[in-house]
Amino acid sequence: MTSPLAQRVLDGEHRAAARLMRLADDGAPAARQALTELFPHTGNAYILGVTGNPGSGKSTLVNRLIKSFRATGSTVGCIAVDPTSPFSGGAILGDRVRMQEHADDPGVFIRSVATRGHLGGLSRSTPAMIQIFDAMGFDVIIVETVGVGQDEVDIVRFADTSLVVLVPGLGDDIQADKAGLMEIADIFVLNKADRPGIKRLEREVRTMLSLHRAAADGQTTRPPICLTTAATGDGLPLLVEAIDDHRQSLQRQDRRQRSLTQQAHLIRAIARTELEILFEETATAPQFSALVADVVDGTTDPFTAADAFLAALLRRNDV
Amino acid sequence: MTSPLAQRVLDGEHRAAARLMRLADDGAPAARQALTELFPHTGNAYILGVTGNPGSGKSTLVNRLIKSFRATGSTVGCIAVDPTSPFSGGAILGDRVRMQEHADDPGVFIRSVATRGHLGGLSRSTPAMIQIFDAMGFDVIIVETVGVGQDEVDIVRFADTSLVVLVPGLGDDIQADKAGLMEIADIFVLNKADRPGIKRLEREVRTMLSLHRAAADGQTTRPPICLTTAATGDGLPLLVEAIDDHRQSLQRQDRRQRSLTQQAHLIRAIARTELEILFEETATAPQFSALVADVVDGTTDPFTAADAFLAALLRRNDV
Repeated sequence: MTSPLAQRVLDGEHRAAARLMRLADDGAPAARQALTELFPHTGNAYILGVTGNPGSGKSTLVNRLIKSFRATGSTVGCIAVDPTSPFSGGAILGDRVRMQEHADDPGVFIRSVATRGHLGGLSRSTPAMIQIFDAMGFDVIIVETVGVGQDEVDIVRFADTSLVVLVPGLGDDIQADKAGLMEIADIFVLNKADRPGIKRLEREVRTMLSLHRAAADGQTTRPPICLTTAATGDGLPLLVEAIDDHRQSLQRQDRRQRSLTQQAHLIRAIARTELEILFEETATAPQFSALVADVVDGTTDPFTAADAFLAALLRRNDV
Repeated sequence: MTSPLAQRVLDGEHRAAARLMRLADDGAPAARQALTELFPHTGNAYILGVTGNPGSGKSTLVNRLIKSFRATGSTVGCIAVDPTSPFSGGAILGDRVRMQEHADDPGVFIRSVATRGHLGGLSRSTPAMIQIFDAMGFDVIIVETVGVGQDEVDIVRFADTSLVVLVPGLGDDIQADKAGLMEIADIFVLNKADRPGIKRLEREVRTMLSLHRAAADGQTTRPPICLTTAATGDGLPLLVEAIDDHRQSLQRQDRRQRSLTQQAHLIRAIARTELEILFEETATAPQFSALVADVVDGTTDPFTAADAFLAALLRRNDV
């Protein structure tokens, strides 16, 4: 028995998909029901993660990749996780406008979703959106993230192929290292390659890779490094080739083992997102203010208060 | 009734303090007991947070600040939260070695503590260490962090005065913005000010500040921006003056209101750290592997599995 909403999503109705995404964002029980029904219809899409800082040009890059996939006849669903920072908001809005050029193509479905808070993190609907696009039959799903926080890293690891986009002169490599992205990238994209500092960036990435991958047991292959200028299209054919090569290489891997790893990361991402929502709900409840006052008044200490906070969080989940 | 361990910490014994820190890191019940006993003896230290990327020179800067505090007769406890990244490990080890020059001064106690995982995050003992230094009677406590993740941001907000250290040419400003540090810095330190790009960095920080602080209601004062070259000491006197000014300005604030805000952030940091430990324990338990296999075998879906994961995490806390 498939619910009408799930059936309409399976029939490929964009409006039904958008509605389910909104319900998922609200944590509605109807959304959970529909997602459970859609799950048996998933697992067919090729999922491409693209992570890069605001200003890395990743939206322009993604736009070019969408065109490239469309040229080979593949349909593309794209989820762009936008940080809600007032500083970067403008630039990203511009990117979204640029993406509107696919608006008339039913083979492309682009959804932009805000980060959970202004400090980043996946909104509740991101994993749901991936499942919905997959069940709708999109051949390729591109998930564009900024790469802040563990839940975003988990989504990147869920992808079949992960691109990490770095730009010269911004210290992106150190940042990517700090965020743990160096270990998980399948392909490095050094974008804005016409800028000064590109050679230095390439050298630094190679140094970091040799350190990391030497430490990781069994990882003998180094991810390719592609130099691109997304604005002009320079280097795009080589990047598309590198993506194809990685996709081919997945065929040679143990399918079950790979699914186990991927689903583990997806479950982690979903659970972590729910947990963060519970955390913030607990921290904004009136009981928390009372707890803090108790610490300030000296009737309890911060460690005991943190225990009480956790107990309240756990009770909240039972409701 | 004070336990012998807590009493020895109150007596200022460095060895007892180090032992309690280790117990706290292990989550030992004896540590909790001792921390509860120490709490009434806290609240007297001035807490200075220093956040900056690996390579920002913040350890050199902290070393100079320690000397400056010592010159005025203040005792200093310093907690350096080190990322465990293989790439940055070397440089940071060097910084630690440099800090050894205070080894013979009983008025300085420096502890380095690893991040929880290679993706950053506070180790369990960081909030405990602050309380211990405070109860021991150190006049100043410096907490040095890299600023990854929400729990680190919470510790920065717990500090009385927060420095955010940025370096030209590394995109530190964009990164600090992404991490939410722009909103919470009391003083910006633009270090390595002898490098090219310092003017541009200063301009960018001013632009970001005008955007952020305009958005935040009631925040009319802009934090000072200090240019320093920690390696030579250039600009240090002005930074010390800015720190003093901020410390003085705290006296004019509502003491209770400030305590409520600070303790709320401390409780959040402690609770979040415990929750992250529960999360990782749950994700590495055999039951999680079974759950993932159920998803891969199609007997459940990732959303239902995430629910089961959370239920297991919550049960784990009850034990």
